[in-house]
Amino acid sequence: MWRPWDNAPMNRRELLAELAQDTPSKIVFLVMDGLGGIPGPDGKTEMEAAHTHNLDELAARSILGLTDPISPGITPGSGPSHLALFGYDPFEFQVGRGILEALGIDFPLQPSDVAVRANFCLVDEKGILLDRRAGRLETAQAARLCHMLRDIKLVGAEALVEPVKEHRFVVVFRGEGLAPDVADTDPQRTGVSPLDPKALKPEAQRTALLARDFIRQASALLEGRAANMVMLRGFSTYPSIPSLSQLYKLRPAAIAVYPMYRGLARLVGMDILPAGGSLEDQLRTLRANWGKYDFFYLHVKDLDRTGEDGDFHGKVGAIEEVDRYLPAIDELGPDVLVVTGDHATPAVLKGHSWHPVPFLLRSPWCVPDGVTSFSERACRLGSLGRFPAVDAMGLALAYAQKLIKYGA
Amino acid sequence: MWRPWDNAPMNRRELLAELAQDTPSKIVFLVMDGLGGIPGPDGKTEMEAAHTHNLDELAARSILGLTDPISPGITPGSGPSHLALFGYDPFEFQVGRGILEALGIDFPLQPSDVAVRANFCLVDEKGILLDRRAGRLETAQAARLCHMLRDIKLVGAEALVEPVKEHRFVVVFRGEGLAPDVADTDPQRTGVSPLDPKALKPEAQRTALLARDFIRQASALLEGRAANMVMLRGFSTYPSIPSLSQLYKLRPAAIAVYPMYRGLARLVGMDILPAGGSLEDQLRTLRANWGKYDFFYLHVKDLDRTGEDGDFHGKVGAIEEVDRYLPAIDELGPDVLVVTGDHATPAVLKGHSWHPVPFLLRSPWCVPDGVTSFSERACRLGSLGRFPAVDAMGLALAYAQKLIKYGA
Repeated sequence: MWRPWDNAPMNRRELLAELAQDTPSKIVFLVMDGLGGIPGPDGKTEMEAAHTHNLDELAARSILGLTDPISPGITPGSGPSHLALFGYDPFEFQVGRGILEALGIDFPLQPSDVAVRANFCLVDEKGILLDRRAGRLETAQAARLCHMLRDIKLVGAEALVEPVKEHRFVVVFRGEGLAPDVADTDPQRTGVSPLDPKALKPEAQRTALLARDFIRQASALLEGRAANMVMLRGFSTYPSIPSLSQLYKLRPAAIAVYPMYRGLARLVGMDILPAGGSLEDQLRTLRANWGKYDFFYLHVKDLDRTGEDGDFHGKVGAIEEVDRYLPAIDELGPDVLVVTGDHATPAVLKGHSWHPVPFLLRSPWCVPDGVTSFSERACRLGSLGRFPAVDAMGLALAYAQKLIKYGA
Repeated sequence: MWRPWDNAPMNRRELLAELAQDTPSKIVFLVMDGLGGIPGPDGKTEMEAAHTHNLDELAARSILGLTDPISPGITPGSGPSHLALFGYDPFEFQVGRGILEALGIDFPLQPSDVAVRANFCLVDEKGILLDRRAGRLETAQAARLCHMLRDIKLVGAEALVEPVKEHRFVVVFRGEGLAPDVADTDPQRTGVSPLDPKALKPEAQRTALLARDFIRQASALLEGRAANMVMLRGFSTYPSIPSLSQLYKLRPAAIAVYPMYRGLARLVGMDILPAGGSLEDQLRTLRANWGKYDFFYLHVKDLDRTGEDGDFHGKVGAIEEVDRYLPAIDELGPDVLVVTGDHATPAVLKGHSWHPVPFLLRSPWCVPDGVTSFSERACRLGSLGRFPAVDAMGLALAYAQKLIKYGA
């Protein structure tokens, strides 16, 4: 690429970083996890079925659109979809499975750690896989097995073991000179042996040997148990990501109940504020810290949880609950209020989906679209059109007047 | 770019390939070549003027949008526009002119062939170009001249000659160690001599010499004829393109009447099914093969043909004919039905154009836009917005539930 001068911006993120200014204006991202669905039995989506007087009234004063979290058609996990919302190109900034799993349990990762997503499984006497999940072991039982694995001693490194849920747990290798380029050991099918944790690069040779030793000792410790083997995958290190304050001169804070989202916020340099267990607690924290930060990420989990359960009416209720608390956020007078989701979770599909996500942005400086409701179909009529979620951060900075002019 | 692990997806195509699964769900791409136009004398486009009860009813159950085949403002040929529709970035996967011309006549190309698009032309006794097309020679006459050129003998290679239409023909150089990096000989104007087929890279030296020899012998054979010289351009080899089954685990089939489209489908690894000569024949083939494939590409040529002829009413009729056959496709129950074009061909412009192309996708998993007609202006209200045609394949895979989740 031809660059007119050495530090000329090469892409949108670099350009935004060059233009961003520290200002007193405040941005709130209200992220309703799993916002966006498809029609249920009566032809309405969850958002259309919900009574959302406040959101509808807000929509009339806002600009609307539909986002693709990663790229059209892609169903994202929470990791990549949140990084996109925070303005990080999900192809450029990829976070390994092991790291995401460790973030999800609030594990205090160090920069040189290699984190691994691990499964308990069941093999026969010849080492052939009978069940990749050991009958989806109960969480309490898996926690006891994890406790046993803490006896494993490695040469020149530690293996830290923490249970997650059911058969899943996290192993963090801690020591000098470790590298994440180690192959998964899960062959993804039964009837064969688990694979060897092969080094994919010479510098990962020692990490691979440590992993092999860990597996050997685990196998010995688990002999005769309902889960008698472990499989490791997603070897990864804590990614080096420029923070939101480095990039955009923001003082950002996260108010999130679930550990995974606090972990993702920490990854991009947000302060983590106490979130309590309810929306009311989260709003109390927001009010108490209003003067200290200029970017707030508020994460609401209940829409995704109910959507994953296939609980259409539960998800409708979760949307209506946010609607009740909305005026309390609006009253604080953020210069920019964004209401959106990280991805859709249609109750009909019982899981994350690829559908575009409703997006709303209110600011004194917007030309309101005049659309008087907030739903998938209403947002398609908005002036923001359909756009990649990674553009949301730049839009928020602009409408908060935090970006100076580009070029003369 | 920083890569978290060695095989991390770098772009949308790699990501789709990583996520794609073999499933029983079925996708139909109904490609109406040249779909999309501009208003005729009474202010309506061809689509607006056509009576399309079935397409309109389908639209009401679908999501709509407008595609840019290559990039906004670009008028594409059928080659790049089809590759984009099949999910291949038209900048990354470029197919040479010679190859496209050979595909267009169903020429059985071999991987090492160098194909060239050739013209008969007329020069004076000094070799100066008088007419670049030799008065647009009649096809039958050009075929006789091609027959004469088959007497040309080269050293260590063959030159296979096939007529196309009017003054155009194809030369395929076949032999060991040929390379396509040879300059065009058409100077694009009269009053000068045709150019020398110069090698653009050292490895194309021999190919350039063969081309020079071919031109010299052709000139001798054609002496005194109405076309007494040939010009060569678009030297190219068969591109190496990963197939749709390699990329997306599809079992794809093409039902296309015209050779060019069969050639393009073969290029991306589709099975070519008998298409007969009518839409009715094509549908019979579709029904007969419904169980054997999970991706069907149905190509309808008549809109483009009538559009190129400037026959507004003919194009309206061609759209109405597709409308009559639409229920027969819908009744087969594809999980995803896409109806779109490869590019617009407005009758008013008598040729391909840069206008965006109407796009419709129906699936049980879509949130219907509630737009009750199918036209250029109706599609602009759709939730898909305006998007690059290269994204269509990923959308179809998603709505057919052939993609697993990305990241955790």
